[in-house]
Amino acid sequence: MRGSFRDGMARLGAAVNIVTTDGVAGRAGFTASAVCSVTDQPPTLLVCLNRSSSVYQFFNRNGVLCVNALSRGHERLSQLFGGKTPMAERFAAGSWRTLATGAPVLGDAVVAFDCRVMEIVASGTHDVMFCKVEEVELDTNRDGLMWFARRYHGVSAA
Amino acid sequence: MRGSFRDGMARLGAAVNIVTTDGVAGRAGFTASAVCSVTDQPPTLLVCLNRSSSVYQFFNRNGVLCVNALSRGHERLSQLFGGKTPMAERFAAGSWRTLATGAPVLGDAVVAFDCRVMEIVASGTHDVMFCKVEEVELDTNRDGLMWFARRYHGVSAA
Repeated sequence: MRGSFRDGMARLGAAVNIVTTDGVAGRAGFTASAVCSVTDQPPTLLVCLNRSSSVYQFFNRNGVLCVNALSRGHERLSQLFGGKTPMAERFAAGSWRTLATGAPVLGDAVVAFDCRVMEIVASGTHDVMFCKVEEVELDTNRDGLMWFARRYHGVSAA
Repeated sequence: MRGSFRDGMARLGAAVNIVTTDGVAGRAGFTASAVCSVTDQPPTLLVCLNRSSSVYQFFNRNGVLCVNALSRGHERLSQLFGGKTPMAERFAAGSWRTLATGAPVLGDAVVAFDCRVMEIVASGTHDVMFCKVEEVELDTNRDGLMWFARRYHGVSAA
């Protein structure tokens, strides 16, 4: 079942995001597709994160994060943040600024959601972080980047 | 913020799914993009559903559901299950069968996840249903169907 679940999930398409954090524990970021809108009252999204991930303690201690939805052309950045590359090298490959929470906002993201983690629900190996969205930065001219069938697909903004 | 959150979420691309249920409360289904993989130990996904939705009681009472990821060409089916069309008419537009739980499985889905609802976490207007995946049906030849920038985009399986 675990294998067929993974093969099945590879065919549930999803946006490719870099989720970042900064604060007392320092700066970190990872590539994630397990991000989901929850409600707009109040504006809330969720992010799933493996508790055994090397970035877990950063998110857990900082309590803030930014979901940066990637664009067509961000494939290399996605790979950097999805691998074993040291954090400084990951962040050096992009241009970053901050909004309300201090979590790094990617300059050329399709959309960035600057968030505070409000509640954490454990499920198996993962924590599901319920996040209140404090600020949204949007560039409607940028194409999206999706992950489907274990490869990238650009989707047009026009 | 609510408007900018909605505009932002329109640019966080997502797979288009029909989520179905059947059981003591009867058969129902709705179009959803707020579906997310959680963990593969045990195989778990989540589905967000507005508690004021007309289908809410069906899911709440039946306790089972199937996530059917749609394919390129399913645009009309997606619209039927996303509108006010009566249930019988919605289901008449597709071909359905069942697996372990009895929830309707779309014959030509890209992938179908047959699930039992294990835990429900309320967040604002919505319930987040944490579901154990009992069976997976996959057709790796089918293109995917994504929602981005408030329109459909096919993504290639090849």
